[in-house]
Amino acid sequence: MKLVLAYSGGLDTSYCAKYLSKEKGFEVHAVSVNTGGFTPEEIKNIEKKALELGATSYTSIDAVQTFYEKVVKYLIFGNVLKNNTYPLSVSAERIVQAIEIVNHAKNIGAKYIAHGSTGAGNDQVRFDMIFQIIAPEIEIITPIRDNKLAREVEIKYLQENGVDYPWEKAKYSINKGLWGTSVGGEETLTSEKALPDSAYPSQLEEKTPTDVKLTFEKGELVALDGTTDTPVNNIEKLEAMASKYAIGRDIHVGDTIIGIKGRVGFEAAAALIIIKAHHLLEKHTLTKWQQFQKEQQGNFYGMLLHEGHYLDAVMRNIEAFLTDTQKTVSGDVFVSLYPFQFRLNGISSPHDLMNASFGSYGEMNKGWTAEEAKGFIKIQSNAGKIYNHVNQGND
Amino acid sequence: MKLVLAYSGGLDTSYCAKYLSKEKGFEVHAVSVNTGGFTPEEIKNIEKKALELGATSYTSIDAVQTFYEKVVKYLIFGNVLKNNTYPLSVSAERIVQAIEIVNHAKNIGAKYIAHGSTGAGNDQVRFDMIFQIIAPEIEIITPIRDNKLAREVEIKYLQENGVDYPWEKAKYSINKGLWGTSVGGEETLTSEKALPDSAYPSQLEEKTPTDVKLTFEKGELVALDGTTDTPVNNIEKLEAMASKYAIGRDIHVGDTIIGIKGRVGFEAAAALIIIKAHHLLEKHTLTKWQQFQKEQQGNFYGMLLHEGHYLDAVMRNIEAFLTDTQKTVSGDVFVSLYPFQFRLNGISSPHDLMNASFGSYGEMNKGWTAEEAKGFIKIQSNAGKIYNHVNQGND
Amino acid sequence: MKLVLAYSGGLDTSYCAKYLSKEKGFEVHAVSVNTGGFTPEEIKNIEKKALELGATSYTSIDAVQTFYEKVVKYLIFGNVLKNNTYPLSVSAERIVQAIEIVNHAKNIGAKYIAHGSTGAGNDQVRFDMIFQIIAPEIEIITPIRDNKLAREVEIKYLQENGVDYPWEKAKYSINKGLWGTSVGGEETLTSEKALPDSAYPSQLEEKTPTDVKLTFEKGELVALDGTTDTPVNNIEKLEAMASKYAIGRDIHVGDTIIGIKGRVGFEAAAALIIIKAHHLLEKHTLTKWQQFQKEQQGNFYGMLLHEGHYLDAVMRNIEAFLTDTQKTVSGDVFVSLYPFQFRLNGISSPHDLMNASFGSYGEMNKGWTAEEAKGFIKIQSNAGKIYNHVNQGND
Amino acid sequence: MKLVLAYSGGLDTSYCAKYLSKEKGFEVHAVSVNTGGFTPEEIKNIEKKALELGATSYTSIDAVQTFYEKVVKYLIFGNVLKNNTYPLSVSAERIVQAIEIVNHAKNIGAKYIAHGSTGAGNDQVRFDMIFQIIAPEIEIITPIRDNKLAREVEIKYLQENGVDYPWEKAKYSINKGLWGTSVGGEETLTSEKALPDSAYPSQLEEKTPTDVKLTFEKGELVALDGTTDTPVNNIEKLEAMASKYAIGRDIHVGDTIIGIKGRVGFEAAAALIIIKAHHLLEKHTLTKWQQFQKEQQGNFYGMLLHEGHYLDAVMRNIEAFLTDTQKTVSGDVFVSLYPFQFRLNGISSPHDLMNASFGSYGEMNKGWTAEEAKGFIKIQSNAGKIYNHVNQGND
Repeated sequence: MKLVLAYSGGLDTSYCAKYLSKEKGFEVHAVSVNTGGFTPEEIKNIEKKALELGATSYTSIDAVQTFYEKVVKYLIFGNVLKNNTYPLSVSAERIVQAIEIVNHAKNIGAKYIAHGSTGAGNDQVRFDMIFQIIAPEIEIITPIRDNKLAREVEIKYLQENGVDYPWEKAKYSINKGLWGTSVGGEETLTSEKALPDSAYPSQLEEKTPTDVKLTFEKGELVALDGTTDTPVNNIEKLEAMASKYAIGRDIHVGDTIIGIKGRVGFEAAAALIIIKAHHLLEKHTLTKWQQFQKEQQGNFYGMLLHEGHYLDAVMRNIEAFLTDTQKTVSGDVFVSLYPFQFRLNGISSPHDLMNASFGSYGEMNKGWTAEEAKGFIKIQSNAGKIYNHVNQGND
Repeated sequence: MKLVLAYSGGLDTSYCAKYLSKEKGFEVHAVSVNTGGFTPEEIKNIEKKALELGATSYTSIDAVQTFYEKVVKYLIFGNVLKNNTYPLSVSAERIVQAIEIVNHAKNIGAKYIAHGSTGAGNDQVRFDMIFQIIAPEIEIITPIRDNKLAREVEIKYLQENGVDYPWEKAKYSINKGLWGTSVGGEETLTSEKALPDSAYPSQLEEKTPTDVKLTFEKGELVALDGTTDTPVNNIEKLEAMASKYAIGRDIHVGDTIIGIKGRVGFEAAAALIIIKAHHLLEKHTLTKWQQFQKEQQGNFYGMLLHEGHYLDAVMRNIEAFLTDTQKTVSGDVFVSLYPFQFRLNGISSPHDLMNASFGSYGEMNKGWTAEEAKGFIKIQSNAGKIYNHVNQGND
Repeated sequence: MKLVLAYSGGLDTSYCAKYLSKEKGFEVHAVSVNTGGFTPEEIKNIEKKALELGATSYTSIDAVQTFYEKVVKYLIFGNVLKNNTYPLSVSAERIVQAIEIVNHAKNIGAKYIAHGSTGAGNDQVRFDMIFQIIAPEIEIITPIRDNKLAREVEIKYLQENGVDYPWEKAKYSINKGLWGTSVGGEETLTSEKALPDSAYPSQLEEKTPTDVKLTFEKGELVALDGTTDTPVNNIEKLEAMASKYAIGRDIHVGDTIIGIKGRVGFEAAAALIIIKAHHLLEKHTLTKWQQFQKEQQGNFYGMLLHEGHYLDAVMRNIEAFLTDTQKTVSGDVFVSLYPFQFRLNGISSPHDLMNASFGSYGEMNKGWTAEEAKGFIKIQSNAGKIYNHVNQGND
Repeated sequence: MKLVLAYSGGLDTSYCAKYLSKEKGFEVHAVSVNTGGFTPEEIKNIEKKALELGATSYTSIDAVQTFYEKVVKYLIFGNVLKNNTYPLSVSAERIVQAIEIVNHAKNIGAKYIAHGSTGAGNDQVRFDMIFQIIAPEIEIITPIRDNKLAREVEIKYLQENGVDYPWEKAKYSINKGLWGTSVGGEETLTSEKALPDSAYPSQLEEKTPTDVKLTFEKGELVALDGTTDTPVNNIEKLEAMASKYAIGRDIHVGDTIIGIKGRVGFEAAAALIIIKAHHLLEKHTLTKWQQFQKEQQGNFYGMLLHEGHYLDAVMRNIEAFLTDTQKTVSGDVFVSLYPFQFRLNGISSPHDLMNASFGSYGEMNKGWTAEEAKGFIKIQSNAGKIYNHVNQGND
């Protein structure tokens, strides 16, 4: 009975590893999917634990580039910030992790997949939906959800089975990835309390403001300060630079897939800077109607991604739309980093539609006469004039 | 030949006052409409100038409350930030100013209205459209637009006619109102340069962070730190408090009504804090679909307002929608002010839908079982499962 | 153990009545909610059956007017046709029936509600959601869904318990209500077959075309051919008149709430004529942007209603929007009825915006000059001109 | 002074040909662009006239295939019916005609383009915008618009110049093209009158119903009744077949670009059948969210096309979106033609998502249990349950 276990090294999935191999007789193949949150040391540590807990095999899948190509790229193209706030850091990772896991299970011929989600969150929905759609024949096993086990019970069970890692509960649960880090704690279980500064993984280390130039090519971040690199590397470099300023902290309050409201802190310096810089570049290079439609499509894409509908065919359609909009979104964006904040100074682009040869806003009209402007306004007023004439006093 | 002149005391409209009364023989009735930018002293000064320049009468219309009731209120209900950035400070004022002016003209039986807009901006469109729709019988006179006069020509003409005010051109043109202040200068005529700190009217005066509590009642700001007052007064008080922190500065890049891109700096501390605080309260008190629809309607409302379509009947329909959404948007929002930034700490509301009695996100499900969650996910996966089954390998 | 049973007189709910009272010991209070499909004779017959089957009481709730006020009115305001085809006849009824049933249960202090839905349809979702939201404390009992009983088993059980009604399965299952009649049969279980003419409840009886005038007042149908009556009566009269022409037949293919595609025939002469006539009146009386927004809001309203989200607060907000749009939707619409089809001939309204005093489309411009038209077009072209200038050959 | 004249052979453009060559000294190069309305004989006749009237050259451009590729294809992909009625027959043609004309002018080095539009219609806007965007350096000459000439004046002028064609005014102005024929007459200048049957170019010739099978491949009509041909040929064949049944007549009431309402009759048998058949195929082969987004994008595309914004970059983006949605829109649609109407009987497609292996709507659930359905509904009710609990009695 081959079973693939989505294994993170934490208490819940460690319990699963032991419980499923020992009590349930599964041949447990542990897998972790790195979407930007794990260092090589952490992966080595996870592997060691997995095998100690009874896993038959452990596989580490590096999905950072896949994560970027399948999801992050489109979140940038669409300037996606859920509720105008949250770059969907965790939501987006789960999708790619689920796809990698189910493909791994199919590859090794496993008939079971296990994960450690509870019954009160979004992740169970994202994981299960993708597993069921891609491989309806695979059975999903979720001991934590099914048994609603308390931490103490899990720890006790592991101890009784000779596993005695230190499981002290971190004050804040942290989930790190390429596109940001989420932070949960007792404050986020309330509506009124902010997270203390110390809860965020990055602390203010740098107080001297600095400038950074982001270069986009068809919507992708291809260079930082003039140095070309892959988008993934550029995101990581910018994160390293900007997190020293403690930029990009906020709290997201959202509607979970299961109907309750959820609140989660996050820090996502690179994600926020990139989205805002990219958006500014679009304001200069896209037409009004492109921006109008992109805003609607981008928000919708984010909503469906958040709710686990990544595999819905409409997502591919919107990706085609978004990709097509990026043809002219190339150029430099000038940003300054300050403690806790950043500023967008301006842009430079061969596609910049703010082009002085046609006249400058509010100053002087070069491309048309006063009479033409007046004709424009007169015809623009026609519909309103008729409406008022017809409905005068009736309305 | 009675003519109403929209008079601001600046060079352009001063030229108009003299030119229209002396050269064109109009009986000039100067009007200024205060939407939050003028002090009593400034109004007195404007009046003095108007009469000296040959105006037969001067009227100051206080439209701050009207401005709030007709427009600002709905910008808050709709969390309207044009291009996710700009609270539409100036766009919104122009609408109300135009309505007040045309009504004044009708009241005094004037057959002409004059204003000082150029032919290269949005304001000409906003003014003319409203004038033509409400009073198509009134002729619009626009000497600056028609004659494309240079400043020097205007100054020379006024001097020749015995008017010798100091007209030195300010380095930055400033437009102040209840909902924010716009700042234009040589930098905003480029795409790449930021405005220097000194260009903004408010400077950093206060470095010690402070907390402030905003209380909303059905979407309106009814109290600050527990002290009840009118929304207009609360906006002004919050602006006074927050502008000391130099909060709310940014640059808006937008599509003008006449098709060119325009760039303008602004500072709008109160507007940004109120909109973000109001939005956070909505995240706690509105359903997912209310937020989804509000985002679309709010953005659309902002677009049409910006483009001068305030009188389109659809605007009243959207206002009815927005008003209806605010029934439960009541409660306190806790904000902290810091130099150049503010943070939203949380909210408290009797309508808060983040209600622990139904379970806490990601922790433990109280209201349903693991089996129910699995049933939910299974049915949710149906459509995707069928799609994949049918299109396997075809797509 | 008081239980309210949604009773229709059909086999499934008859089985429930007997089974729940006899085997499960419930005190069964049968209820049927008339949303336009039952005659007084049918209701009498249903009552007789209910009591014979062991119900303690039977209540017939007349909800036709409620159905109109709560739902149908807004479907007209929003011109709602699901997938541009289906007036949501059945979906809409279920909502109102569920609300009436749960309120009845609360009134008589019942702790249980039973209904006869299967596990493969939309109705179970619509019923259960409304029951659970309004009265989460009431338990829902669904023997047909739970036990997946075959018709024969149900009939046999009833016979063994002395109930021997003739239960021959109708070739087509028919569901009739104020807003249309649905028709299901073996053809609708396929994708390729149409329903035969004979499957539709109304047959072609009248071949001579006739004219009918529909008068709307703020969006509501207040008169037919000049005779004023309530909207409900007018709908029923128009249905009687138009169904003789076999108008309004079609097949709806839709996405069910549970993720599978469903296909159902319907005839809805009055609903289709009223929606199309109302829409035509709106084309004459609403502005372009009102129509644009109404189309989006109306479709969205229909989607949520169809999926059982009638109680979502956004529905009230959209109703406020739709109601506000109807202020000028008053006037006459001239319709001709023909066998299997109808034609809209035109309208007459004091709010008609097609007003010759401003010029006639394509003929002659009265309200503006050629120069003004040219100015309009020139400014309209600005954005495109700049775009092409900047991106020439790059795009 | 080379000038390209958009020449149709009608009175207005004949006047232009003579007037511009004789009075204004232009070297007139007449062009007509065939988008499906002209027979070879008509083109020969147009050529003869053009040269007689003083044109230096005449060019007939066959743009039927271009029209299909650039516009009609996307109108089908998007199921575009303006205001749910009008297939945009004429609007769509004008775009392609304008592009062909301006390209011709650039090719032959003309510095002027003339057309015969009035100042009261949409066509002037569509023509001028495309001319100005593609070739801002070319001057546009519009004698009819500029001089507001009456027919009699034009006829008299032509007679005085030796041109004595019979110019009796047709009772109905007809505009024929691949995607439909528009019909204007005295009735369409009113709001209340329908066009008489005789005003439509096609008359009822065939009363015996017939079946026709439309085969789509990725959204394109590739075969009729099993015979493969190009989409353009299939449209023309279907039109020939269906117009004998007098199918596809209606009247469109729309908002013109210049703000007045316009009313125009049309017949478009092939366009309506194809769009409705294509739409039905999509209901079977696309997901709910694909349909939802397509409806919004398709309507928006139609609106911008109608208003002459075909060259806006967003149109290319939406085309990319629409094209991507068509990947699975392949299969047969079964249609029956009747006098004045058609019926869609059903479809057959390898991508049909109505797939009995997952259970049949409303009958029996095969893919899930009653418990799973109940779990689904319970979680779906969470948000509403919380809302009601929190706002009970407050709302």
